Amino acid sequence: MNTGSFFKGLLDKVAAPADPARGAARRAREVAELCHSLLSGRGEVSGAALARELLAAYAGLPAAAHTPFLSLLASDFSPDAAAISRAADTFADEPSPHHLIALQRAVESPRQELFRRLNVAPGATAMLIELRRRLLREIKAHPQLAAVDSDLAHLFSSWFNRGFLKLERIDWRTPALVLEKLIAYEAVHEIAGWNDLRRRLAADRRCFGFFHPALPDEPLIFIEVALTKRISSTVAPLLDPNSPVADPFHADSAIFYSITNCQDGLRGISFGNLLIKQVAAELSREFPRLKNFATLSPIPGFARWLEQQAIGSPALAALLSTLQTTDWHLPAAQAETLRAALTSQCARYLLHEKLEGKPVDPVARFHLGNGARLENLHWLADTTPAGLQRSAGMMVNYIYDLDEVEANHEAFVGNGRIAASHAIRKLAREYEKAGNGVEAKPQRRK
Amino acid sequence: MNTGSFFKGLLDKVAAPADPARGAARRAREVAELCHSLLSGRGEVSGAALARELLAAYAGLPAAAHTPFLSLLASDFSPDAAAISRAADTFADEPSPHHLIALQRAVESPRQELFRRLNVAPGATAMLIELRRRLLREIKAHPQLAAVDSDLAHLFSSWFNRGFLKLERIDWRTPALVLEKLIAYEAVHEIAGWNDLRRRLAADRRCFGFFHPALPDEPLIFIEVALTKRISSTVAPLLDPNSPVADPFHADSAIFYSITNCQDGLRGISFGNLLIKQVAAELSREFPRLKNFATLSPIPGFARWLEQQAIGSPALAALLSTLQTTDWHLPAAQAETLRAALTSQCARYLLHEKLEGKPVDPVARFHLGNGARLENLHWLADTTPAGLQRSAGMMVNYIYDLDEVEANHEAFVGNGRIAASHAIRKLAREYEKAGNGVEAKPQRRK
Amino acid sequence: MNTGSFFKGLLDKVAAPADPARGAARRAREVAELCHSLLSGRGEVSGAALARELLAAYAGLPAAAHTPFLSLLASDFSPDAAAISRAADTFADEPSPHHLIALQRAVESPRQELFRRLNVAPGATAMLIELRRRLLREIKAHPQLAAVDSDLAHLFSSWFNRGFLKLERIDWRTPALVLEKLIAYEAVHEIAGWNDLRRRLAADRRCFGFFHPALPDEPLIFIEVALTKRISSTVAPLLDPNSPVADPFHADSAIFYSITNCQDGLRGISFGNLLIKQVAAELSREFPRLKNFATLSPIPGFARWLEQQAIGSPALAALLSTLQTTDWHLPAAQAETLRAALTSQCARYLLHEKLEGKPVDPVARFHLGNGARLENLHWLADTTPAGLQRSAGMMVNYIYDLDEVEANHEAFVGNGRIAASHAIRKLAREYEKAGNGVEAKPQRRK
Amino acid sequence: MNTGSFFKGLLDKVAAPADPARGAARRAREVAELCHSLLSGRGEVSGAALARELLAAYAGLPAAAHTPFLSLLASDFSPDAAAISRAADTFADEPSPHHLIALQRAVESPRQELFRRLNVAPGATAMLIELRRRLLREIKAHPQLAAVDSDLAHLFSSWFNRGFLKLERIDWRTPALVLEKLIAYEAVHEIAGWNDLRRRLAADRRCFGFFHPALPDEPLIFIEVALTKRISSTVAPLLDPNSPVADPFHADSAIFYSITNCQDGLRGISFGNLLIKQVAAELSREFPRLKNFATLSPIPGFARWLEQQAIGSPALAALLSTLQTTDWHLPAAQAETLRAALTSQCARYLLHEKLEGKPVDPVARFHLGNGARLENLHWLADTTPAGLQRSAGMMVNYIYDLDEVEANHEAFVGNGRIAASHAIRKLAREYEKAGNGVEAKPQRRK
Repeated sequence: MNTGSFFKGLLDKVAAPADPARGAARRAREVAELCHSLLSGRGEVSGAALARELLAAYAGLPAAAHTPFLSLLASDFSPDAAAISRAADTFADEPSPHHLIALQRAVESPRQELFRRLNVAPGATAMLIELRRRLLREIKAHPQLAAVDSDLAHLFSSWFNRGFLKLERIDWRTPALVLEKLIAYEAVHEIAGWNDLRRRLAADRRCFGFFHPALPDEPLIFIEVALTKRISSTVAPLLDPNSPVADPFHADSAIFYSITNCQDGLRGISFGNLLIKQVAAELSREFPRLKNFATLSPIPGFARWLEQQAIGSPALAALLSTLQTTDWHLPAAQAETLRAALTSQCARYLLHEKLEGKPVDPVARFHLGNGARLENLHWLADTTPAGLQRSAGMMVNYIYDLDEVEANHEAFVGNGRIAASHAIRKLAREYEKAGNGVEAKPQRRK
Repeated sequence: MNTGSFFKGLLDKVAAPADPARGAARRAREVAELCHSLLSGRGEVSGAALARELLAAYAGLPAAAHTPFLSLLASDFSPDAAAISRAADTFADEPSPHHLIALQRAVESPRQELFRRLNVAPGATAMLIELRRRLLREIKAHPQLAAVDSDLAHLFSSWFNRGFLKLERIDWRTPALVLEKLIAYEAVHEIAGWNDLRRRLAADRRCFGFFHPALPDEPLIFIEVALTKRISSTVAPLLDPNSPVADPFHADSAIFYSITNCQDGLRGISFGNLLIKQVAAELSREFPRLKNFATLSPIPGFARWLEQQAIGSPALAALLSTLQTTDWHLPAAQAETLRAALTSQCARYLLHEKLEGKPVDPVARFHLGNGARLENLHWLADTTPAGLQRSAGMMVNYIYDLDEVEANHEAFVGNGRIAASHAIRKLAREYEKAGNGVEAKPQRRK
Repeated sequence: MNTGSFFKGLLDKVAAPADPARGAARRAREVAELCHSLLSGRGEVSGAALARELLAAYAGLPAAAHTPFLSLLASDFSPDAAAISRAADTFADEPSPHHLIALQRAVESPRQELFRRLNVAPGATAMLIELRRRLLREIKAHPQLAAVDSDLAHLFSSWFNRGFLKLERIDWRTPALVLEKLIAYEAVHEIAGWNDLRRRLAADRRCFGFFHPALPDEPLIFIEVALTKRISSTVAPLLDPNSPVADPFHADSAIFYSITNCQDGLRGISFGNLLIKQVAAELSREFPRLKNFATLSPIPGFARWLEQQAIGSPALAALLSTLQTTDWHLPAAQAETLRAALTSQCARYLLHEKLEGKPVDPVARFHLGNGARLENLHWLADTTPAGLQRSAGMMVNYIYDLDEVEANHEAFVGNGRIAASHAIRKLAREYEKAGNGVEAKPQRRK
Repeated sequence: MNTGSFFKGLLDKVAAPADPARGAARRAREVAELCHSLLSGRGEVSGAALARELLAAYAGLPAAAHTPFLSLLASDFSPDAAAISRAADTFADEPSPHHLIALQRAVESPRQELFRRLNVAPGATAMLIELRRRLLREIKAHPQLAAVDSDLAHLFSSWFNRGFLKLERIDWRTPALVLEKLIAYEAVHEIAGWNDLRRRLAADRRCFGFFHPALPDEPLIFIEVALTKRISSTVAPLLDPNSPVADPFHADSAIFYSITNCQDGLRGISFGNLLIKQVAAELSREFPRLKNFATLSPIPGFARWLEQQAIGSPALAALLSTLQTTDWHLPAAQAETLRAALTSQCARYLLHEKLEGKPVDPVARFHLGNGARLENLHWLADTTPAGLQRSAGMMVNYIYDLDEVEANHEAFVGNGRIAASHAIRKLAREYEKAGNGVEAKPQRRK
């Protein structure tokens, strides 16, 4: 160490407590330096050691250093604009395969190669998913991170290609290490602990997940299924940890009552579509007597949409204020009054409220886009606080009929047509007939 | 089927025997049609079924249809040149992250998404490797295929990222399904059958390969190691299927005597570098007494290089004509005469004959680029016909000293410096001193 | 069905509610009939089907039928006394190998063959262990069951031979199905639930069990180990679910703090001895810095023994009555007064109170018989209610020094000598010097 | 070492070459000494180490020491005759359960406990099987070994209980280590090498074996099955390594063409019966279209039996001398002449030649005893030298019809009745009608 760097080191130490932001920036720069090394010639031969070092350094970053580091990834590892322009001009002059290849190389961010080299280190795949999770939280405030996000998304769409994922059954034989993650991740119907989980994995239930070979203990997505007689119209019996276990070979219906994406860092890499169909096929093989494959789903956007409708509609506003009281569903008369108004509103919402030609409701968009059919709407099917609040206590069944999903999907994509049962269409028409739906109801009832 | 297509079908059948090329072209178009479907909206929901269908159709293509199909991949699934130009102009005007992302998307070939979707089908990864293998054989004759090759190479560099590969020991417990592939693939020292293979997997030998989770029965690359006392100077004892099996815990040297890339379709995706170092680390753990990690390698470019040198040199030409006689190494006096001339020529060839700053010899380029050191040159170390012909019977040891590989590599990359022992350097100097090496020898010996 | 059996069936049904004992007896006879079939020629060819049928019939036995069935096993499947006498006479006349073999066959109970044939059915091994568990609870009341017990014990000593057991690490990757059994079975320090269990399987803890291939989800015995700095003298820190997890590579001691036999039906088939030594060897390999292998054990027979001593000793009786007050250890002065008296009593108890030449205390008998050394006695090392009550709050360390276990064991078996530290011997001598130990203490302290 | 043992050592060395038998006896005694140690108290605590030592010492025994060691096992580890007599008398006086247990213990050889303790060492199970294999070869010459054999057989019948065996499919994914044993062990139709084996494991063939968890690389028994259209009448097409591979889903018949017991040391521990039925059940599940489960079996005792018949019958003697010429089956006329005589002789042999009420032919005894039905007799179905010589070129189908095996078996065991087709019975009657079968034929043909 020469005198210069000695004093520099001294200054750093002095400065650190005084200016934590500066310390964080320095730490971020140090990790970025390792990134440069990994991309250099040295990285080619000592890649594995360097990648491990980089991973450890990143893991040791203080919280304040993460955004600076992400910013360095955005600023220092982007492709060279001038080189892009030259390659683009050459291609424009003569759009040959070789000029195309040259241009493709020019526009690829050095970040991609960085991430690929980093991935040699054990644990790097998980670290990159985590990095993107952080990045997605920062992206609104730091729009320049979009290019980093795009690179990660591109890489992940190759790495997590469906062909590399394994569908695995999750049951009481699964390692506890994986099971505790179900408890942590479950996003639809919270798992209250190990006893609750154990019931959800009993003989008349099934749980499947997609796993990637590099992350053997991390479900990417998982789905919970109840094997029942008849299509379920309420969710409480499915979730009751003390319910008796039925013989699954007597079931005629498979109810997909929960599907959870586990990795925020893989947002936009779609698995759910394939998972449902593959699980349906798997269950058909194991239980040839199954006839119905149906979800029991919330309508999570309904209450929010209703609020928007209520602006300027005193009748809707009154209805909404009722919905905001605790346990509004308990007084039977009140519930019955609300029923007609809300179910037809909801049917209309699901069938006709669209954004860019697709249903506004995210769950409807997902299942209808997959080729499912909207079959039933159940009043007071989910009276948990969350269910009452977001979906006004209602739930719906989307039916996966493997013989019609393709046709449904094509009609949906081609001309926005939604597959729905006669009953649902009729409900929605009641709304139409009644004008704006709320004030109309009492009249219709006469 | 309407009348039109009925007649068309009829005509096709009639035409088929008459014009096989036309039939092949039609078959290629049919598969390309499936590719379009898979990329369409229909592919999103029925991807798995379509991908399987496409795979089967491709597998059924007659030989004559392969090149037409590859050409369709090149012509019909490339990015749109006009869209590229627009995106390039926008980026040139304002090089923002979003314009960069837009340009990156514009230059990406639809082929990439096609391959990613296809990969959902079981067996698709293997099929794509096979497709690139065919393509690489055609690329000289059909240069427009370069863009398809570039897309596959790009995809494979993500899919076959080292972080996803598993180093697996291959031994007599390995499934026969995998073992028979070693016999088929071995490229350095042919495996004569199951008995030969069994000896190469005995207690004083080790074999390791890299495997990808999607191809569990397919080694991507494998390396064969002999555990010996002292660094081997001839290859015959290592290959003798009847040699006695030694106690590996008494060995001090691990001799990497064969390394084989198994998948032509993965050309350019480099694994060998990492494999050697990881195997060396693995062996160090199992056998703490090992001190030397060395190859016993051919000099496969030597004879060809010598031929070029001989043009215009009567002395070298005479030497070469001796080398072209059968069993030239058997007359002891003749062999001794050749020894001095050839070993110093060879040392010179390895140390000083370069192409773009790197050794001309492909094996030397590989190991020296990995940071190995050129240690010994052994006269008549490989007297098999192939060894006598390509390497004039010589072999060399490259030493992998994990403490120095990084420094060696950096010197090699930075200023083209080759790590070599004093003995090798001295041998090469003898050549220099002697002028052109051949005529000089008798004088030096006086 | 003929008329007779029709009426018999009718009568059975009528009788059943009126006389449940008669119904139970009938059910027991029906299962015994299946046993006879399985032993007959029919059993040879249809063994698998019959064995499954028998298993199902046994599983369906009402509680009241179990003892009758066990009695039938004792009475109807014993060897023939007359045949035994004949074979014994023949052997006495001429003790040839063939007469010995004939006698061995004559004395073997047909039950043994019955159990071997039954074992073909899936689940039969577990069922037989369960059957012996029931039998052992009944054996005092029904001494004729001893012969059945002896046959099962003989069979199990072959089936559960140590050579067929697998030592398996149990950790957070183990299936929940197995982990929940640890919670259920743990006999020394109760596991309070999944969180408690999770801590006991963290990085600075180890858990190992023996498993039999036919019962892959059933630990036969398991041992819990803490990796610590220094030999633990109190158990609370080892059991605290919120204690920080230490780096096991810094530990110098492995503390065996709990060992549990899981299967009552395998009583007398000893595994513990081998388990401790094998785990010690396993841990030595993984953590070469470990120097001490020690238990932290209760003295479960101490309090009961003290009660017997107190008969006729007013001083001891007074001491005992103090021990029976809640939280007697909390008043510091009182605890200190008790300390001297109890520790020396306990040392004496462990070293000198013997039954048939071996320590009365079952834990001492086990570890000292295995060749361990009694090293330390810790005052107030276990202040849980159970610890205060049974062991007067004390715990001891038995040391497993693999270099001395054999010599210790031989001295123990040969002449009843106990391996113990100087400190323990000194403590026990204080008791001797003080006469009966209690009254003496105050005097010694002057 | 004291002087005495020094001189003793010296003498041993001197004596060794002079008297190898004495050296062998000494070595056998040394191993027997280790056996005594293992049975002593020392064995309880140091069992694992001692067992390993004993195993190594046994493995190092020179060939000449094996029989002496076996004799020591017979003489020194038998139960005490006086103790047996006392226990037998006590039991005779009062045949209580406890006296029975005491007698059972008295008659059990200490060998059994020795073998159980030895089994703790890795590899001991295999070693004990090997020891019995040697013993069975010596038992005729050394009848006192019968008691050792009986103990091993008793132990093995517990250890290798069917409930502990695993049925495993053997195919081209099986480790080479196991596959090479099939080549070595195959006893019915020799496997000519890896290519031959590969064909026998192709898609239209199946191979299954029983494995024991302690011997994971050692098949105990294996069976080879061909999936065919129609029941095979000749074996050559099934064995042809170059035959085309058929689609197994089109097969209607499973032909068990070879079944091999692999372990001589397990003689008398029967697996074959269960294996065939379990494999038939397994195949039914995988291939629901299978209708026939049949063997294609030799008649290995036929030629030998015919020789005995020929004594005193010039006609038969002439026939036999024809059979002893090479390729007697090739001259068509001669073969046709022999056909009638031999097939009816053979049918008669199979149906009526009995020993203790069961067929003399070992293969017939095995399958008919399992409940199979003798269905067809095929002339010149096996024209390999072995087939021509032992079975006069004939083969038969035994049919396993799972619905009738039990009834067949009971009839066979109960009254010696053989299940056979009408055709076979008719063939046998032709023999009867014709008198002694040979001379009669020409007359019948008139």
